Amino acid sequence: MRAVVVVPSTAPKVKTDAIQYYGAELVTVAPTMSARLAATEELAARHGYVLIPPFDDRSVIAGQGTIGLEIAADCPQADLVLVPVSGGGLISGIAAAVRACCPRAAVVGVEPELAADARDSFRRGERVAWPAADVQRTIADALRVEQVGVLPFAHLRALVTDIVTVTEDEMRAAVRLLALQARLVAEPGGAAAVAAWLFHARELPSASTAVAVLSGGNIDPELLARILATD
Amino acid sequence: MRAVVVVPSTAPKVKTDAIQYYGAELVTVAPTMSARLAATEELAARHGYVLIPPFDDRSVIAGQGTIGLEIAADCPQADLVLVPVSGGGLISGIAAAVRACCPRAAVVGVEPELAADARDSFRRGERVAWPAADVQRTIADALRVEQVGVLPFAHLRALVTDIVTVTEDEMRAAVRLLALQARLVAEPGGAAAVAAWLFHARELPSASTAVAVLSGGNIDPELLARILATD
Repeated sequence: MRAVVVVPSTAPKVKTDAIQYYGAELVTVAPTMSARLAATEELAARHGYVLIPPFDDRSVIAGQGTIGLEIAADCPQADLVLVPVSGGGLISGIAAAVRACCPRAAVVGVEPELAADARDSFRRGERVAWPAADVQRTIADALRVEQVGVLPFAHLRALVTDIVTVTEDEMRAAVRLLALQARLVAEPGGAAAVAAWLFHARELPSASTAVAVLSGGNIDPELLARILATD
Repeated sequence: MRAVVVVPSTAPKVKTDAIQYYGAELVTVAPTMSARLAATEELAARHGYVLIPPFDDRSVIAGQGTIGLEIAADCPQADLVLVPVSGGGLISGIAAAVRACCPRAAVVGVEPELAADARDSFRRGERVAWPAADVQRTIADALRVEQVGVLPFAHLRALVTDIVTVTEDEMRAAVRLLALQARLVAEPGGAAAVAAWLFHARELPSASTAVAVLSGGNIDPELLARILATD
């Protein structure tokens, strides 16, 4: 099926290369949520395309929820599930499934401290937007979203226990440890939940079995090489 | 349980560090099979230790065979199984299990061309030893063995279809591809079977579903960084 993928101009080369390698058409726009939304809506309107939003959508959230079903099936004893948060779709689906299947498990979101709009929204009880330029600072390109979605925010309030933040160095350390000890390649945003477990255990609900979701492995080889070469 | 691990002086730091990190005592000897065997036999005799040989042992081979049982359970349609060969214990166990459970699957061994003693032995119909200095040349430290074991050689003759060799660059390319596309960290010897599948398909039995065993992920971070930084 033909696909057109709209990405911010700050997307890493490994992701834009992969999009084109798999045969999709790449459209690059300014690195803001509003630019992406405007471009996709215009493409959909002009060409009759089906729009697949990144997170603020019931079907997308339900799809992400299958990860929660897998956690419940593979690890029913889990009492803490850590999930990276960007627009909030991933944690929404996972929290809905985990809370339904394993009610005693707490679900906690993890954000970079350089893009902590969801943490701020969660604390204040209303959706807070960060400036687009600010969220661009984090190495975790997958988590550079200025504001959680409307549906995700409702899920956060109803189903999520807390949102904690991690530093850039903590994400780098988690990428390194995952590669060298778990033999898994994760990108910085994908490793954020592991970083929270490694470095922020005291801020997390006490747990005997924690599950960390690795939500992406598309890391530029040069970045991974730099992280591995630094002890 | 207390453990003493005898390693060649050429073992990579990541492996010796891990042995000590997990609490075992490290004994370093010259990089030859005979030096390792002499040291372990002397330790066992002097202290009453139980000797766990690396490959030429029925129990060790049977233990490795559980990987073959897993392949048969997870991928019963497999018609080709590729296994790295060093002393030959791993492929012996896997071949015994795979040939029993999936008789139509061929099992093929993979060696570095710089340490191809098993290939030579297989071709000549008798165990051939390579000079210890020669097998040290390969980047695949896990496959630096001068000669396959007696029991493994009997398994190779009875159960294995062929042994193919891969170059150093092919193993490096397989490590890189596994990290960036499969998101799995393998050491060079551990990636040898994937290298054979990538670069020597024409030498392999024709297959619709090939399984490559990744037999190790203990790669020095500096080496992995160099492999990732080189396109």
